[in-house]
Amino acid sequence: MNHVTHNFSAGPARLPPAVLERLSAALAPQEQPSIVEASHRGQRFMAVAEELHERVRRCAGIDEEHAVLLLHGGASLQFVQLPLNLAANRPAAFLITGHWGKKALEAARTIGKAVVAGSSEADGFTRLAEVEQIPHNCAYLHYTGNESIHGVQFDRPPQADVPLVADMSSEFLSRPYPYSDVDVAYAGAQKNLGIAGLTVVLMRRDLLERIPDELSPYLDYRSWADNLSLFNTPAVLAWVAALEMLRWMEDQGGLEAIGERNQKRAARLYAAIDATGFWHNPVAAQCRSVMNIPFWPTDERLTARFLAEAEQNGLIGLKGHRSAGGLRASLYNAQTCDAVNTLIAFMQHFEERYG
Amino acid sequence: MNHVTHNFSAGPARLPPAVLERLSAALAPQEQPSIVEASHRGQRFMAVAEELHERVRRCAGIDEEHAVLLLHGGASLQFVQLPLNLAANRPAAFLITGHWGKKALEAARTIGKAVVAGSSEADGFTRLAEVEQIPHNCAYLHYTGNESIHGVQFDRPPQADVPLVADMSSEFLSRPYPYSDVDVAYAGAQKNLGIAGLTVVLMRRDLLERIPDELSPYLDYRSWADNLSLFNTPAVLAWVAALEMLRWMEDQGGLEAIGERNQKRAARLYAAIDATGFWHNPVAAQCRSVMNIPFWPTDERLTARFLAEAEQNGLIGLKGHRSAGGLRASLYNAQTCDAVNTLIAFMQHFEERYG
Repeated sequence: MNHVTHNFSAGPARLPPAVLERLSAALAPQEQPSIVEASHRGQRFMAVAEELHERVRRCAGIDEEHAVLLLHGGASLQFVQLPLNLAANRPAAFLITGHWGKKALEAARTIGKAVVAGSSEADGFTRLAEVEQIPHNCAYLHYTGNESIHGVQFDRPPQADVPLVADMSSEFLSRPYPYSDVDVAYAGAQKNLGIAGLTVVLMRRDLLERIPDELSPYLDYRSWADNLSLFNTPAVLAWVAALEMLRWMEDQGGLEAIGERNQKRAARLYAAIDATGFWHNPVAAQCRSVMNIPFWPTDERLTARFLAEAEQNGLIGLKGHRSAGGLRASLYNAQTCDAVNTLIAFMQHFEERYG
Repeated sequence: MNHVTHNFSAGPARLPPAVLERLSAALAPQEQPSIVEASHRGQRFMAVAEELHERVRRCAGIDEEHAVLLLHGGASLQFVQLPLNLAANRPAAFLITGHWGKKALEAARTIGKAVVAGSSEADGFTRLAEVEQIPHNCAYLHYTGNESIHGVQFDRPPQADVPLVADMSSEFLSRPYPYSDVDVAYAGAQKNLGIAGLTVVLMRRDLLERIPDELSPYLDYRSWADNLSLFNTPAVLAWVAALEMLRWMEDQGGLEAIGERNQKRAARLYAAIDATGFWHNPVAAQCRSVMNIPFWPTDERLTARFLAEAEQNGLIGLKGHRSAGGLRASLYNAQTCDAVNTLIAFMQHFEERYG
């Protein structure tokens, strides 16, 4: 149908060409050392670090009551770093709405006591879970803002009278969100904020006081909470990529405009999925993900054929997660309207031939 | 003296222009998604992962008795990940020859029992330490192959009849080294192997059997020991940079040629330091570092002037670590002979004016 490749990968994910151009230029050999060769204690990188922290703070809409921590990659390390810091001696509660919430719960159980506060597993993770029980003296309630495999997303943070901890990996800074009401939010950068190798943690400063003093500094959030997260050598290029993404997002009109665009794109794709019964997505309408849209041909034997033909037509990264099968389109910040429109046209064309 | 900038930074450090060119090209916008936008489970990245593991293995000279683990950045996380995996219930012993060994010891003490097997601190870390005592039932002996602040380097691994664990961060793959005789070697990539965001661990497979089963998978080396280290989303670009560095190293003649060149460059700089008494380096000749060369004007009041004039002449990154003061030239794999010759000429010129 066309010769442009459209990438729907769930992360590492598409980047805006303008960001790629800047990263490519930053690495081109020149007289001065490139930013990846410069000392992370030097003025040049310090300017990157300052602007990045400031832009994350501004974009998330948080003030000095929250610390911005830029950690090394592997956001799932937070599954253990969080309970080590905040739930060493108190139980943590988990609201389970999919695969990643279960992973976070299992990991917390390797550290201390962790219980299920509510779960939608019995419904195959096709709806949100409600808070049914919170243990006495609970350290925090953990939820997964967006479950990227099942395509289930909280519109707003759940209500609870304990600190809220949010895994925002697959929707971080994709729309206006009340981060100031969330006590801890964490996310890997490779979905909406650049490339793999950086994990962002936003944390209310008063929670830092609960960290056990005997915790090793290499796992203690306080090591990163000051001095611009320069506790040890950071993943320089992932920081630069995040900074370029934030600049690009501002050029696009900021989080309001980006959130609206993301919402519209997802709505168009869901409309196409729901149109005829040829496709289906089982998630309840009010919690369908704007970021990751899993769908299946109602005749599931057509999945492999769809993937093969889509790829021949330049639509890649559409294979569902190995645990879910089917198809999945990820529509992060850098996704284009053209890509979504092309996918929808291809789906209609496919349906005409095999419906 | 010239208009080329020579970067002596201790890490993040200089990269070869050929490697920068390839990274820059890899990020340039093009019809196909760049490698940082591709799924880490897809064929394209799998080819990178396979070649990288294979090249690390070949360059280090290890066979299948060792596993190659490519972890997320922040090599100092290994200071706690190591004892969590291998010394949870047994004491670890540390040979202390500088700042980083002390850090590793302190971190291990937050996990379990850790003792000093020998130390050269009383000599201001100007020589190596010898193994004086190893506790009964010792999990491993840890040493720091090269202390980057004091400029002290082991020529060969120390002798001990317990497993040897080596922090090789600042000398990894800079010369032929008997990695097959070392039970665990770990290193951050941003000195000799590319950019920050990747930590390499080489580990004898039989040690994996000692890891406690209750350890969280996010900290358990076994999670990375198979499946090409693809336990979670890797820092894709840091992997690509390491691969390009290893290809470049092979083009340079491999580790034999690189080790010889590194040795010669360091010898020339030490000869210049020792020549007249205007400069000094206090480290015993047989353990002077080939990678990081700290030096001081004998009249230490000249340090600031030297740094300022050096920078005006395009010689940057020469400031000593904040804990040591003075000057330091780092001569990692990508350093050039031209840079070292220019530095030596500048030192002589400086001495003529202020000597």
